[in-house]
Amino acid sequence: MSAPETDRPVSRFGVVEPADLPDDLRQRIEAIAEKSGFVPNIFRALGRRPAELRAFLDYHDALMTPGEDDPTLSAAERELIVVATSGANHCTYCVVAHGAILRVRSKDPELADHVSANPYSVVLDDRRRAIVDLALQIATDSASLRDEDLEAARDAGLTDDEIWDIGSITALFAMSNRLAHLTALRPNPEFFLMGRLPR
Amino acid sequence: MSAPETDRPVSRFGVVEPADLPDDLRQRIEAIAEKSGFVPNIFRALGRRPAELRAFLDYHDALMTPGEDDPTLSAAERELIVVATSGANHCTYCVVAHGAILRVRSKDPELADHVSANPYSVVLDDRRRAIVDLALQIATDSASLRDEDLEAARDAGLTDDEIWDIGSITALFAMSNRLAHLTALRPNPEFFLMGRLPR
Amino acid sequence: MSAPETDRPVSRFGVVEPADLPDDLRQRIEAIAEKSGFVPNIFRALGRRPAELRAFLDYHDALMTPGEDDPTLSAAERELIVVATSGANHCTYCVVAHGAILRVRSKDPELADHVSANPYSVVLDDRRRAIVDLALQIATDSASLRDEDLEAARDAGLTDDEIWDIGSITALFAMSNRLAHLTALRPNPEFFLMGRLPR
Amino acid sequence: MSAPETDRPVSRFGVVEPADLPDDLRQRIEAIAEKSGFVPNIFRALGRRPAELRAFLDYHDALMTPGEDDPTLSAAERELIVVATSGANHCTYCVVAHGAILRVRSKDPELADHVSANPYSVVLDDRRRAIVDLALQIATDSASLRDEDLEAARDAGLTDDEIWDIGSITALFAMSNRLAHLTALRPNPEFFLMGRLPR
Amino acid sequence: MSAPETDRPVSRFGVVEPADLPDDLRQRIEAIAEKSGFVPNIFRALGRRPAELRAFLDYHDALMTPGEDDPTLSAAERELIVVATSGANHCTYCVVAHGAILRVRSKDPELADHVSANPYSVVLDDRRRAIVDLALQIATDSASLRDEDLEAARDAGLTDDEIWDIGSITALFAMSNRLAHLTALRPNPEFFLMGRLPR
Amino acid sequence: MSAPETDRPVSRFGVVEPADLPDDLRQRIEAIAEKSGFVPNIFRALGRRPAELRAFLDYHDALMTPGEDDPTLSAAERELIVVATSGANHCTYCVVAHGAILRVRSKDPELADHVSANPYSVVLDDRRRAIVDLALQIATDSASLRDEDLEAARDAGLTDDEIWDIGSITALFAMSNRLAHLTALRPNPEFFLMGRLPR
Repeated sequence: MSAPETDRPVSRFGVVEPADLPDDLRQRIEAIAEKSGFVPNIFRALGRRPAELRAFLDYHDALMTPGEDDPTLSAAERELIVVATSGANHCTYCVVAHGAILRVRSKDPELADHVSANPYSVVLDDRRRAIVDLALQIATDSASLRDEDLEAARDAGLTDDEIWDIGSITALFAMSNRLAHLTALRPNPEFFLMGRLPR
Repeated sequence: MSAPETDRPVSRFGVVEPADLPDDLRQRIEAIAEKSGFVPNIFRALGRRPAELRAFLDYHDALMTPGEDDPTLSAAERELIVVATSGANHCTYCVVAHGAILRVRSKDPELADHVSANPYSVVLDDRRRAIVDLALQIATDSASLRDEDLEAARDAGLTDDEIWDIGSITALFAMSNRLAHLTALRPNPEFFLMGRLPR
Repeated sequence: MSAPETDRPVSRFGVVEPADLPDDLRQRIEAIAEKSGFVPNIFRALGRRPAELRAFLDYHDALMTPGEDDPTLSAAERELIVVATSGANHCTYCVVAHGAILRVRSKDPELADHVSANPYSVVLDDRRRAIVDLALQIATDSASLRDEDLEAARDAGLTDDEIWDIGSITALFAMSNRLAHLTALRPNPEFFLMGRLPR
Repeated sequence: MSAPETDRPVSRFGVVEPADLPDDLRQRIEAIAEKSGFVPNIFRALGRRPAELRAFLDYHDALMTPGEDDPTLSAAERELIVVATSGANHCTYCVVAHGAILRVRSKDPELADHVSANPYSVVLDDRRRAIVDLALQIATDSASLRDEDLEAARDAGLTDDEIWDIGSITALFAMSNRLAHLTALRPNPEFFLMGRLPR
Repeated sequence: MSAPETDRPVSRFGVVEPADLPDDLRQRIEAIAEKSGFVPNIFRALGRRPAELRAFLDYHDALMTPGEDDPTLSAAERELIVVATSGANHCTYCVVAHGAILRVRSKDPELADHVSANPYSVVLDDRRRAIVDLALQIATDSASLRDEDLEAARDAGLTDDEIWDIGSITALFAMSNRLAHLTALRPNPEFFLMGRLPR
Repeated sequence: MSAPETDRPVSRFGVVEPADLPDDLRQRIEAIAEKSGFVPNIFRALGRRPAELRAFLDYHDALMTPGEDDPTLSAAERELIVVATSGANHCTYCVVAHGAILRVRSKDPELADHVSANPYSVVLDDRRRAIVDLALQIATDSASLRDEDLEAARDAGLTDDEIWDIGSITALFAMSNRLAHLTALRPNPEFFLMGRLPR
């Protein structure tokens, strides 16, 4: 079977390599690349608009890298939200890329595939079920959100700061999923296997 | 009839006044307030998280304030996208606030109400109909976006830079609408009448 | 930005002026016009079929003008139902025209915009929340209505006569919204500002 | 298997017999009963509110009984619209009652069951397919109706008066279906067999 | 009104008569035909692929003909599931054919029409309501099924074997409805009247 | 992060090991296990009902293993249909298990993840795009299928036998997906990595 997906361009609108970005962006992307071993394609695609890429990175850093003393969602829980809502939104790039990160962060080689294929009834413990349920409502039907939905989240033990994180991460990836669909963004080949093999 | 909407707090998670924000943010918000005559509530609500507010402002500036020589979407067209997709997403804050801005930018006191109530069949000229149709698809069903949808936009005369803008503005307000729903954000009373009266 | 909405005809099928209607209809419409200051466009559009216009007026009068001693829904509550369900149905004419009447009846210049933009989670007191919830179910998914839904309405203190009113007003505007969409009915310019300014 | 459907009341809100209605209504209902052999339950249920029943009958007469010289939709085509849209709306009363009338009017004992079970792809000639397609759009998603949809109907040979009829009959039964769901209206037993046996 | 439905072929892909089937299938279909008085069209349509028809018959027999001592769902309850889910799926063949069988099995000439027109709120006793509710969830949104949904079924008195039957019958007819839609399968004329007349 | 998914039982209703199945089934399952290296969990779960398992295997064999001279869909194309429709149905077991088989059959380690995450706009050549489009319509909205949809498939070069296969495989997995959701079927750990590493 021919494989048009892997032959096609990374983005419908072309890419910009880190070397061709303004210095501050080049340095940030290179630091990511050094850690990952490659430049995630989202940065190459958004490089077409440096100011937008910069704001995207800033928002992403603010929400996805909790401080060490930050008493809120763990890094794995943040990725769980991304994979669940990107699965609901059918966003291939985010499912594949953040699925890889979730495998790494959770040290579970199967969890991401369970969550992305069916976020609606994947079996999770009560805290994570409450996190994913709130995230799915905000991802797919945020206009219906009422105080009682937040009460349900608080009843599951979530704090207001955690609820803010759930909502904001979901919102950020509502944007990110749409940017990936706009550009028909192709995931880097490295993501597909990452975290699947025992170290 | 009692009016719980106007009695209730601006945000479910409280607000931070500009004076209590880091200096750079305080100055940016004060500049906006000077121009508008008041501090739009979104900034007071997002002030709870300065780093997120900063990234939000940066993204917003990059997409909503085209340069003078920027040969792409006009300021009114950008607001048109916001009002149409926020109407589809049932986001009261964005419909009311950006509806006001659209009235000012388009110098049309009725257009925003037409667009927000029914973005699906509001009568627009061909260029704006194509803009709104693409924005609605990305807002409500971005997973279905195929090359032929972008071809249709190009056939209506839209350039790749304009298509990028349409997609990115829609994506930004997919995020923004969800943040407004998360916080149950109340529009400032000033927005309701803005642009409705002849100057 | 050009404004095709305000240039286009009032109805796809033309209009009939009151002077050209049968006497009884002419008198009824003129009485409404005297009170409002103008002839609402719905009557000019439906004038194409006098028998249908007459039945429409009769149904409307029976449901929207409660008797003084009528111990059921208030006039403002009836308009609340119309604005909420017309918002859910994306009916521009009914949102704009009955939004204006709701502003007048409720003496609240903001309520209608809140209700029409997002009827699903607008903050209302318990009685009005129950009214709008029942109306929304009947407007958007009436086949699912079960005895327990009516029990919930009764638990919120609504009587059988009030429930009948909620259901029937919602049903009447299910019709009315569709007639407005059929004719692409344009709201009179007077409605947009009505009830927004302090008297 | 026990049969709660046939044991339960005709309407959730009780019924009013013709003898207990105002004279004009009593006479109209009795005339219908004489012709049908029984009083259709919709009239007994709506009898709770004589003014509403009167308006309902007037609207129904105006749309469902074309004049002899009326060069528009045939009586069978009008019932076809009712059965198709009531099938899409899952309204048991209207499917059963108007299915019976469609069998009688079309002299086809099977057509109504085909149309109500699957109005979306029932095989019809081009004119009737265009009638049903327009009716289904107005019944289930009227906010999306654009000029091009009406052009498609005109291309199938439908006149403006016929399009008005299609839209208005669909709108009337959007109301009627909701009234039937509000009252949990039970169809008269006579309807189930009517028109199924060769005369 | 012309009747394209009854003029059109039984299946889009032609039919195979029992006489032209392999011996084992010929004998099974003839036994059914002897009992019913005619060959149900589904067997003539699936005859195009004998191995598939054989598997279909085997699956059908395993689920739809409970053993005499089988302490699970009654034959009428099994047909109730088929009619409810086929109604939700708008499958004309299954609604008409299994509606007929449900009339025969339940000895109720009205039940099938109630269930197929509106499975969502048809009035049933508690056990049958629980059966239909579980079947509808599996038919229309099986990805949302969680342990608590099965608990609700158990609370209504259903055993694990009965729940398995409900799920499996619903699943079998998810397949069967799609095969009928693929082939545009026409119901045999005999089904329409079966079970409607007192014996 | 704890991993409730991988701790939980294979099926909500328990499993039956091949050794405890009737001889014919035991032999068939053991042959599969010998080829795969393990017993796919679907067979252990369906073993609870041997007659149903037998019919399931027969149907599966008839549709998923084309004869060598069978001039229709290739084995990889058949798996493509399964992965696309199971992705649309959010069926984790079928996405994971048949995703693995698709990787093996297509010799492409990425294709299955692309197809399951977003079957709606995954980039495929014209023949495969037509296959997946028809399959998705039958999986998610089969009631809308009209002759013109089949004409579109024929225009893409598909034969009637291929269209039958597409429809029947989609129908079989409409059943299979629902059985997996009914049993909350857990994929075997072996599937997750299969076909991802170069041989």
